[in-house]
Amino acid sequence: MPELRKDAITRRWVIIATERSTRPTDFVPSPPEPDTSATCPFCEGREEKTPPEILAVRRSGTAPNTSGWQVRVVANKFPALRIEGSTELITHGMFESMGGVGAHEIIIETPNHNGHPGVTTPEHLASVIWTYRERYRDLDRDERFKYLLLFRNHGRPAGASLAHPHSQLIALPIVPKRAVEELEGAQQHFAQEGRCVYCDIIAQERSEGVRLVCENSEFVAFAPHASWSPFEVWILPKTHVASFGALSGSDILPLAEIMQQVLGRLQGCLHNPPYNYIIHTAPYEGKVGHFYHWHVEVMPRLSQVAGFEWGSGFYINTVAPEDAARYLREAAPAPRVQETAAG
Amino acid sequence: MPELRKDAITRRWVIIATERSTRPTDFVPSPPEPDTSATCPFCEGREEKTPPEILAVRRSGTAPNTSGWQVRVVANKFPALRIEGSTELITHGMFESMGGVGAHEIIIETPNHNGHPGVTTPEHLASVIWTYRERYRDLDRDERFKYLLLFRNHGRPAGASLAHPHSQLIALPIVPKRAVEELEGAQQHFAQEGRCVYCDIIAQERSEGVRLVCENSEFVAFAPHASWSPFEVWILPKTHVASFGALSGSDILPLAEIMQQVLGRLQGCLHNPPYNYIIHTAPYEGKVGHFYHWHVEVMPRLSQVAGFEWGSGFYINTVAPEDAARYLREAAPAPRVQETAAG
Repeated sequence: MPELRKDAITRRWVIIATERSTRPTDFVPSPPEPDTSATCPFCEGREEKTPPEILAVRRSGTAPNTSGWQVRVVANKFPALRIEGSTELITHGMFESMGGVGAHEIIIETPNHNGHPGVTTPEHLASVIWTYRERYRDLDRDERFKYLLLFRNHGRPAGASLAHPHSQLIALPIVPKRAVEELEGAQQHFAQEGRCVYCDIIAQERSEGVRLVCENSEFVAFAPHASWSPFEVWILPKTHVASFGALSGSDILPLAEIMQQVLGRLQGCLHNPPYNYIIHTAPYEGKVGHFYHWHVEVMPRLSQVAGFEWGSGFYINTVAPEDAARYLREAAPAPRVQETAAG
Repeated sequence: MPELRKDAITRRWVIIATERSTRPTDFVPSPPEPDTSATCPFCEGREEKTPPEILAVRRSGTAPNTSGWQVRVVANKFPALRIEGSTELITHGMFESMGGVGAHEIIIETPNHNGHPGVTTPEHLASVIWTYRERYRDLDRDERFKYLLLFRNHGRPAGASLAHPHSQLIALPIVPKRAVEELEGAQQHFAQEGRCVYCDIIAQERSEGVRLVCENSEFVAFAPHASWSPFEVWILPKTHVASFGALSGSDILPLAEIMQQVLGRLQGCLHNPPYNYIIHTAPYEGKVGHFYHWHVEVMPRLSQVAGFEWGSGFYINTVAPEDAARYLREAAPAPRVQETAAG
């Protein structure tokens, strides 16, 4: 019997329809992507093919925009939003618009064209996360920006147009709808219960255990009760913190470790599935510290969004999160690969 | 310069990023789908391959579940929701769920395996729309159902797993999120302005004309100001009506005519693009007649939903709706094909 489940934060419903008892092997692996390393603009030695670097983790003594880097941030050559301009609201009859002002940057995660965060070392992934945090804090200083969206598209079905491992950030002049929905739901829970809704969910997930994937001293990963997508996993800090920008230096390696665990287990279980991960964080402005709780949502892209999902805004998930968590707990993480680059 | 536009109803923002000046020919046509007519369960003469018919438009004197039909409604063999069960809310700590109760039916639109509503006759399409309305009204009598979602997936990238022309309906025990968002936005506009927000938009679109695609005596079609997707088109009745179920007999043919026009122009302009269309209507219950206005949203599926869209809930559209409307006005509709079947 299918089941309707309600997201405890956003009150969005999902249909968990498991009658065809989907197993990890039922998902057809994506066809291998063509090898584009010969012309890849993100590979080491082709630094002139990208806009100049904004930030890099690189071997001491090497010059910007040359070889010798481990992580490198550049402006997106084809940005969705432009850094110049004003955010004044323009009204035209019924309709409102504003200039498309924002920052759109690429975080090139490694010089290794065939790398993946699920098989790298936690130490390397920690340098990527440190870079995220630095860019988060730096863009906070531009008062036109209200929100920073940090995300990773992996594989063509998940929207990655280049195969070389990279993440993206978009700084936005408005707080996006999905963030507003979470903030409103979390605020309402706090008003009723006097507690953070995410802290309450962490407590229930850790006590029940059926949807837990893994945890370490600082972070916990589980398949959410009302997962939109098969094998969806959320990673949350165990300690209540609203903003990703507040990530402390000592929490960077534990976050890298759990992300490497989760992505490695997804790799091992589902054979390099396409996915998106998104860092959900508090807006730059606003007093939300007591009720919001930053986290990472990892969404494998294993099913299609069709008319039903577009029309209703709710999703049909063919794998119960309890089953997904069990498969992921049992999966061996993919073997780790030492990054070949400058360390 | 990209532009941020705000949906006047749901207050959702989209990015209109046209710097690469996308033209219709820039969208790569989907590869042709394999010919599945030899085994298609929806083709005439294979009526035993589907569950028994719930309703059909058929030649007088022919028996149910035999040849001689023009439109045929059957239960979905693999339903997302099940017709049996209760809709009692179950609470489990933080989390809420209910049985997955609902109706999931297939409307087989024609016996012609290679048909398409964009190239059929308006008279044939009228019999499909009449069928939609009859099922809408019939399912209204089951008091467990709060909302009916009628939609069409065309092409694999839009989620159609069978190529034979068909639509679907899902009767839901809850009002879905997207409908709630529209209802709330429309209610707020009515509270402020004392008018239906859709009626106001129709007035502005007809007076400006730049986003109009076509109109007839009863309906108007335009590319909405804050289109999510390239070549998105909305079709609305010019007269204020909240529920699709209230569609009068004399409005069925005008609706068929404008849908055939819109889908035919999309076919002509974009070479059989994948798309979803969804009928947005009032819920079965609730006094929303004064502020809600039913309509059809046609969403071509020409771009990918990636991390940015998942994370933010807003969309990047590379074709300005003003350009899309102009291309669609100039496009010759695809040539019509007479349905081969029983008439």
